[in-house]
Amino acid sequence: MTLDEVHAIIMKVLLKNGCDEANATAIADNMTSAERDHAVSHGLFRLPTSVTSLQNGKINGRAEPTLSRPSAGAVRVDGDRGFTPLAFKLGKPALVEAARTNGIAALAITRTFHFAALWPETSALAEEGLVALAVTSSPPYVAAAGGKRAFFGTNPMSFAFPRKDGPPMAFDQASSAMARGEVMIHARDGHMVPDGVGIDSEGQPTNDPNEILKGAQLTFGGYKGSAIALMIDLLAGPLIGEAFSAETGRADNGDGGPALGGELILAIDPVGMGTGSQVLDHAEELFAEMTGQEGVRLPGDRRLKARNETPTEGIQVPLSLHQKILELAEA
Amino acid sequence: MTLDEVHAIIMKVLLKNGCDEANATAIADNMTSAERDHAVSHGLFRLPTSVTSLQNGKINGRAEPTLSRPSAGAVRVDGDRGFTPLAFKLGKPALVEAARTNGIAALAITRTFHFAALWPETSALAEEGLVALAVTSSPPYVAAAGGKRAFFGTNPMSFAFPRKDGPPMAFDQASSAMARGEVMIHARDGHMVPDGVGIDSEGQPTNDPNEILKGAQLTFGGYKGSAIALMIDLLAGPLIGEAFSAETGRADNGDGGPALGGELILAIDPVGMGTGSQVLDHAEELFAEMTGQEGVRLPGDRRLKARNETPTEGIQVPLSLHQKILELAEA
Repeated sequence: MTLDEVHAIIMKVLLKNGCDEANATAIADNMTSAERDHAVSHGLFRLPTSVTSLQNGKINGRAEPTLSRPSAGAVRVDGDRGFTPLAFKLGKPALVEAARTNGIAALAITRTFHFAALWPETSALAEEGLVALAVTSSPPYVAAAGGKRAFFGTNPMSFAFPRKDGPPMAFDQASSAMARGEVMIHARDGHMVPDGVGIDSEGQPTNDPNEILKGAQLTFGGYKGSAIALMIDLLAGPLIGEAFSAETGRADNGDGGPALGGELILAIDPVGMGTGSQVLDHAEELFAEMTGQEGVRLPGDRRLKARNETPTEGIQVPLSLHQKILELAEA
Repeated sequence: MTLDEVHAIIMKVLLKNGCDEANATAIADNMTSAERDHAVSHGLFRLPTSVTSLQNGKINGRAEPTLSRPSAGAVRVDGDRGFTPLAFKLGKPALVEAARTNGIAALAITRTFHFAALWPETSALAEEGLVALAVTSSPPYVAAAGGKRAFFGTNPMSFAFPRKDGPPMAFDQASSAMARGEVMIHARDGHMVPDGVGIDSEGQPTNDPNEILKGAQLTFGGYKGSAIALMIDLLAGPLIGEAFSAETGRADNGDGGPALGGELILAIDPVGMGTGSQVLDHAEELFAEMTGQEGVRLPGDRRLKARNETPTEGIQVPLSLHQKILELAEA
């Protein structure tokens, strides 16, 4: 499929299944950028479960997010129980303005459903010259270090830094050893996962993705990844008046779609920090020295490589998924 | 030794070796709090190498840090080539005030020598009711994912969250799989280290700590820890107009003491984020549910346990270190 076709079919599916134009467009933009970058687990793959949640009324496809400014450096967007991208679209200009005025600012997005990658958001801020960090939680899928059952969400963190010539450096990584979408894809394809990815419902290590989906994933890097997962649970939860992962799980209807929750995004303006334009030159020296080593790449490199190829190569969609999406578009 | 004795001997050593009262006090306070919490590798252990750097003129024991405010949410402190604690002491009230006014604020500390743990700083901010995140870099000891030589510093990250009754929850963890001090202690004691801690000077995995000290440490959690190390290199380096780890290493005189570099501290006020006082109650629910699981502890737990014991138990100092410190006090 071409990217235009991807965007068009997502729009069609969402408009047929309870989204208005504004919500559908924000979601289709985000999902298409995931497909463009071969971030498959955040692309069309998420569409059927999202539609389920629209159909059963969990997600509001006609959400009208509202913005408030509790302080000079803080922006809040209430997502009105819709998908996150439209809430971000509303909050982004205010966050950029607040960061430019104050040097640093925060955007708290609440009451939205997170199905999407975070890097499109941090990258969009870095395109404005800002350094950005975003975190969100999810229903509990991941055990805390030492624990035998799921407590944390996969709790991803995305960080983006602007580059002098070209798209930002951005990473986006779950606090789990493996992204949940990847575990699901392994299960679908009948592949085992490596050691350290998860435990079964008895708390025993296993390589079977189906057992892990019934049990719990593990954090990356043991107790250090667990500390980061805890930090994200606090930042995207209690700090902004939102649920923490375990609460998110209890409140969800378990339909397989995304769950209601919060997201925190920080943006720092190098100019406001008193450093300014030499920052980008200096960062380029770091990037050059880092990637000058054999075997070392910048995070997100594969995604940027894919980004250059998809406009000419198009993307591949598994036949069964394609079929399913066509059905949802005609339903 | 009692904690009062620890503090007194640190003061005596520093005043004898080029520090003025203000610098010595800030350092002694930080080092004593490390000993109080049994964070041995950030306590008296660091004193002899710090004195070496004072004696050879690398570190300015009479530093007069200066503060500037490039924007409403940003505070900068130029450390005047002294140790970090005095610079932090100067910057902290301005950071707290800026966070309370703007909801979020950042403190960039530049031109200081980092010998200390970060959790005393993040905890001090959390004692004021703020959520705090601090990062700093160091000379390169750690390979980037895929690399065969040291490129990143150990690049610690500390995060602290205020608690309703009692000291803040705080973690402080290196981006390396094992703290550098622990690798050195394994080498001294002739013990092998586990898999994944480091590589030799040829870039090959090894369990020999001596080979790792000649080669490079590895990040925790593979490429995900490496992405975090990169983020910290950028935040504590180019973003605030400071050196990145590889540059820090090249500029240092290699005397074994700390190296000149930067630190970035973020502080968020829950009130300014529009959430406010229920944040702490809500976080307590998270902590209670987390630690209600068998085998799960909060990060920093051991440190807080030690903190309760040391006032009555005192601390143990290895005889050779004690001897060395007494000599430095009389020199």
